[in-house]
Amino acid sequence: MAGNTFGQLFRLVSFGESHGKAIGGVVDGCPAGIELDVEKIQLDLERRKPGQSKIVTQRKEPDTVEIYSGLFEGKTTGTPIGFLIHNTNQKSKDYSHIKDSYRPSHADYVYDKKYGFRDYRGGGRSSARETASRVVAGAIAKQFLKEVKINAYVSQVGELKLDEHYQELDFSLIESNPVRCPHPEMAQHMEEYIKTIKKEGDTIGGVITCVVQNVPVGLGEPVFDKLHAKLGQAMLSINAVKGFEYGSGFNGVTMKGSQHNDTYNPDGSTQTNHSGGVQGGITNGMDIYFNVAFKPVATVLQAYDTINKAGEKVTAQGKGRHDPCVVPRAVPIVEAMAALVLADYSLLVRTNRL
Amino acid sequence: MAGNTFGQLFRLVSFGESHGKAIGGVVDGCPAGIELDVEKIQLDLERRKPGQSKIVTQRKEPDTVEIYSGLFEGKTTGTPIGFLIHNTNQKSKDYSHIKDSYRPSHADYVYDKKYGFRDYRGGGRSSARETASRVVAGAIAKQFLKEVKINAYVSQVGELKLDEHYQELDFSLIESNPVRCPHPEMAQHMEEYIKTIKKEGDTIGGVITCVVQNVPVGLGEPVFDKLHAKLGQAMLSINAVKGFEYGSGFNGVTMKGSQHNDTYNPDGSTQTNHSGGVQGGITNGMDIYFNVAFKPVATVLQAYDTINKAGEKVTAQGKGRHDPCVVPRAVPIVEAMAALVLADYSLLVRTNRL
Amino acid sequence: MAGNTFGQLFRLVSFGESHGKAIGGVVDGCPAGIELDVEKIQLDLERRKPGQSKIVTQRKEPDTVEIYSGLFEGKTTGTPIGFLIHNTNQKSKDYSHIKDSYRPSHADYVYDKKYGFRDYRGGGRSSARETASRVVAGAIAKQFLKEVKINAYVSQVGELKLDEHYQELDFSLIESNPVRCPHPEMAQHMEEYIKTIKKEGDTIGGVITCVVQNVPVGLGEPVFDKLHAKLGQAMLSINAVKGFEYGSGFNGVTMKGSQHNDTYNPDGSTQTNHSGGVQGGITNGMDIYFNVAFKPVATVLQAYDTINKAGEKVTAQGKGRHDPCVVPRAVPIVEAMAALVLADYSLLVRTNRL
Amino acid sequence: MAGNTFGQLFRLVSFGESHGKAIGGVVDGCPAGIELDVEKIQLDLERRKPGQSKIVTQRKEPDTVEIYSGLFEGKTTGTPIGFLIHNTNQKSKDYSHIKDSYRPSHADYVYDKKYGFRDYRGGGRSSARETASRVVAGAIAKQFLKEVKINAYVSQVGELKLDEHYQELDFSLIESNPVRCPHPEMAQHMEEYIKTIKKEGDTIGGVITCVVQNVPVGLGEPVFDKLHAKLGQAMLSINAVKGFEYGSGFNGVTMKGSQHNDTYNPDGSTQTNHSGGVQGGITNGMDIYFNVAFKPVATVLQAYDTINKAGEKVTAQGKGRHDPCVVPRAVPIVEAMAALVLADYSLLVRTNRL
Repeated sequence: MAGNTFGQLFRLVSFGESHGKAIGGVVDGCPAGIELDVEKIQLDLERRKPGQSKIVTQRKEPDTVEIYSGLFEGKTTGTPIGFLIHNTNQKSKDYSHIKDSYRPSHADYVYDKKYGFRDYRGGGRSSARETASRVVAGAIAKQFLKEVKINAYVSQVGELKLDEHYQELDFSLIESNPVRCPHPEMAQHMEEYIKTIKKEGDTIGGVITCVVQNVPVGLGEPVFDKLHAKLGQAMLSINAVKGFEYGSGFNGVTMKGSQHNDTYNPDGSTQTNHSGGVQGGITNGMDIYFNVAFKPVATVLQAYDTINKAGEKVTAQGKGRHDPCVVPRAVPIVEAMAALVLADYSLLVRTNRL
Repeated sequence: MAGNTFGQLFRLVSFGESHGKAIGGVVDGCPAGIELDVEKIQLDLERRKPGQSKIVTQRKEPDTVEIYSGLFEGKTTGTPIGFLIHNTNQKSKDYSHIKDSYRPSHADYVYDKKYGFRDYRGGGRSSARETASRVVAGAIAKQFLKEVKINAYVSQVGELKLDEHYQELDFSLIESNPVRCPHPEMAQHMEEYIKTIKKEGDTIGGVITCVVQNVPVGLGEPVFDKLHAKLGQAMLSINAVKGFEYGSGFNGVTMKGSQHNDTYNPDGSTQTNHSGGVQGGITNGMDIYFNVAFKPVATVLQAYDTINKAGEKVTAQGKGRHDPCVVPRAVPIVEAMAALVLADYSLLVRTNRL
Repeated sequence: MAGNTFGQLFRLVSFGESHGKAIGGVVDGCPAGIELDVEKIQLDLERRKPGQSKIVTQRKEPDTVEIYSGLFEGKTTGTPIGFLIHNTNQKSKDYSHIKDSYRPSHADYVYDKKYGFRDYRGGGRSSARETASRVVAGAIAKQFLKEVKINAYVSQVGELKLDEHYQELDFSLIESNPVRCPHPEMAQHMEEYIKTIKKEGDTIGGVITCVVQNVPVGLGEPVFDKLHAKLGQAMLSINAVKGFEYGSGFNGVTMKGSQHNDTYNPDGSTQTNHSGGVQGGITNGMDIYFNVAFKPVATVLQAYDTINKAGEKVTAQGKGRHDPCVVPRAVPIVEAMAALVLADYSLLVRTNRL
Repeated sequence: MAGNTFGQLFRLVSFGESHGKAIGGVVDGCPAGIELDVEKIQLDLERRKPGQSKIVTQRKEPDTVEIYSGLFEGKTTGTPIGFLIHNTNQKSKDYSHIKDSYRPSHADYVYDKKYGFRDYRGGGRSSARETASRVVAGAIAKQFLKEVKINAYVSQVGELKLDEHYQELDFSLIESNPVRCPHPEMAQHMEEYIKTIKKEGDTIGGVITCVVQNVPVGLGEPVFDKLHAKLGQAMLSINAVKGFEYGSGFNGVTMKGSQHNDTYNPDGSTQTNHSGGVQGGITNGMDIYFNVAFKPVATVLQAYDTINKAGEKVTAQGKGRHDPCVVPRAVPIVEAMAALVLADYSLLVRTNRL
């Protein structure tokens, strides 16, 4: 209820603050019998971790996952999987610039108003550091989903936008560059652009596209828990996300029904896929694809005006080691949240029929 | 779990098929002591109902709500509010064209695959008729929220798009035209365009913008249940919705952090509002605004190719009385879902502090 | 959250007040494909309904269930089953004796304190009339469970207590007498005793024993949702219930481990069954059996002292047509709640393994 | 859903196996602003821990709680409180006697059937070691509840049963003896009896009585989530519990309504308290009191017959360091679960009224 739980049957409870001793989580409802490759979890954490390239934050945190339960002789037991990622980079640094004043477009102000006070160190609970727990859970979910393939990539940074549809791209190139854009030339442009932005002490937004393939027919629940509605919640719950669209998305608005409708082939597949693999909230077996819009990171390394707790105007200076553009590191987070949604519905679908 | 429940503390359970005896719902968790004006509920139902103008479906259904419980001497008692809306327009008509074949981009195929069979009459549970139950619950939520003002309007139909920001519009004009666009001139264009589309037997998509004002600070829960994430789920759960964005949305992607950040005024308000009234998933007291993208309605009154249950190609003819454009009637549905989200978080926020 | 929902995957939401227009409910999560015999539902309602014999309340209510959704061509569709039972016996009678004063050991006082006011007519939401909705949902659950056999019977009324263990009794005799005790001689004593109590204008408590047979191995979830823990909640949620015990129950306290342990047979069955069919919260395939203790009904047809809203002492006179002993009519309610618990866990168990 | 979560608003998620690296949990929904005394948590853990006296298991585990999140400058922040208790006593001992065969009346058999295999070391997830996590969460809940007083004590061991009603006892004597019975003379008898049982290599059951005082009026939700129903689930979810009764309990069955009804005093208190502080599922401000029946521990240090995985009869020898009687160590667990229930309802009650 307090917002730290995601999923109904395959469920993650997340905990931890940016500068506490550790962050962590509990994956509950993971079926028994999965041979869990812990290295794969660690691999996804590496894709998310700070310091991995020059275009991301230069903080150094190893982000090593420790699993405390739910595994026996290499297999999931059906009992909850508790895990920790220790925070190793908690400098006893000077937080005075954020302790008593509110950084614009951060959660500082609203946390203070909501809870009466806040753990201001590095953003506390509102820090995107929390998403490491999601990556762990998502990596477990991926191993449960097995045959389902989830690939996310950066399709836009600022005004630099891929024209290619996902089907024209080679997903094996995603990890070939620090931007995680499967179009090497565009990736190069994006990388340079992010470096320029970084030099300015500024930040820029971006879009991640995610494609889910080999999806069984029938996942998703009618009415409020339509598959794409839960995917939407999942993506919008990631820090800095401002928008979500699937299939034809916002562009579908300008289409006519006669154009937009996806005609069936005899095998139940469709000739076009404006539906984005989901009809009436339920998967039809076609690829699911969706876009997630990220705003520019709020921390800019510039001077800014704001207010303090007393409501007085103050001037502050942005500092720290932050991402000039969040999307390269957010790729595994988008994948993780997609995996969590699909894992949950993969269990729910088992209960639909006599 | 089966997708028919929305909300945690202020909760709607919805039931009913398009051509069953009735649809209905239960609102559970509505606080005691609200003087409930049932006419206001009926008024919102009128805004959603078929046959209200020439640009919507010409079906005639009175859509009268009957409340069975939870009210005593005009006030809510804190116990669940059960209600029905009888289906009065269930013609014993010929469904043979949809009984054995699958309408493209409808839920026919996936329901059959998921459940083994389906109530094919008028789309059954997947029909947008279900949203009438949401309008009832939302109208109750609005009366609980009282001081919070929720206004939705049509901001785009096909390529016809309002340039004006919501602050330049007069919400009192929304109901002055059948399109529900508060810009009379544009409304006129949209209306004519929809009529043209209708004559073609075709359909067209659109966008609804929703603005929530007078929102208290502190609504929304961290991490997975961020206010905008639940709003996103709520909107994406409405039939035909393909996308959701709030605040700067997809446009925010191209902005720099230094531009995008909303500078605080001494009273905690912000000079700009790219955040869309939500920071870190929690309301900051500024207006919440968001866009909801609707695809064109799948039912076109044209001949189309599809497959039947046996996987054989068949040709069918779209018929019935359907909406050429769904957005005019979807305005109260968007408001209802927004109200449900806000009501839920208005209760949750009471539990945050000692 | 507000207490009107039971079950996670197979779920009942109940609504309605004793003297409103109707009570009802929604069964959500019932799997598709069950050929539902509505007469069987009605049959269980008859077993619960007032006026069925001389030892129960003489109110006359037909208690006819009307189903509004979730059924198509005689089968469940996997969508929510909404139903109503109209209240036909709502006399516009004089409630002045309970409107402003609090009946001892009823919920009048606490409802007023909790909600600020209450629907005082016939107890409103706190009336046991609500259990009719449970009987409907339970009768649906029974048809899902099919091979599982649930039999409840009256094993004690006041001091009159059956010595026989359930295995010495013939369940086919349960419905042969108005007490619903499968021991005809004891049933006779109980019936006479209840008549005596009734003449005194008094009431008496009793115990219902319930036996569940043909249960698959593996139902129940570890830790907090142990099968017997949810059965306990289910039973204790029935009006007037004061205690629950399963297997060896309170008597098991005096046994030694060496006596109490159930030795396995080669087929996994056990030689004794002190475990009551549940070990570690999970069914082992043996019979589940448990006892439910009911206090005497609070409404006595005698004069009594109490207080009014102003906290002043008043004298009142019990009146109305109430049950001298609630257990005969509670038998189908106990069965219904057991069926709901088992149906829920029968779905959950499908999600345990890869 | 998988049974490891308890509570709706004040919620514990528990994880960990008896012989894994650690057990732990997450308390989510704890309100912000509580000055949390971690030593008090540790104190309750000491009351539960093995090796504390000669009548409990002689295992040695320090059971030290480590808190990882949700606390800042000594106060709860409103964010989830993640904690671990490391398992320090995991001997690499010989489990061959339980690896391939099933201990009678343990969860070995049902876990294997349910999940396909099990972590057999020390009972794995089904071990009562898990209850240490509950004690931590309960100790946090107690500090939230503050003015509410929860006292549990041993009222019966085998046939040795306290005749005194809780009001005749001095709760300050509970911790004065290893049995945790506030009647020193009876405590002495019980202690000797347990020692005798221990010498026999056998075990014996017992009853814990729990009393909750200074409870506000209005806690508890109608219908399915009645306060006593959730208390019942909470208690029955504790390992080895076979029965629960509150107020008059099973004895109330033999009373007449005219005797059982609790007459109101002008201040809303009642002259008697057969209701056990709960009417219609909602607290009336009187003391809540209830009994919890524990069966004898299944592990006896004797030879026993059982079956192995292949269904073959085998003979085994009970060994290890187990409790001859579980109730002395279960006292803080009962209190913890009561605290969790009350904390949850203390938050829910805030949402009842406009």
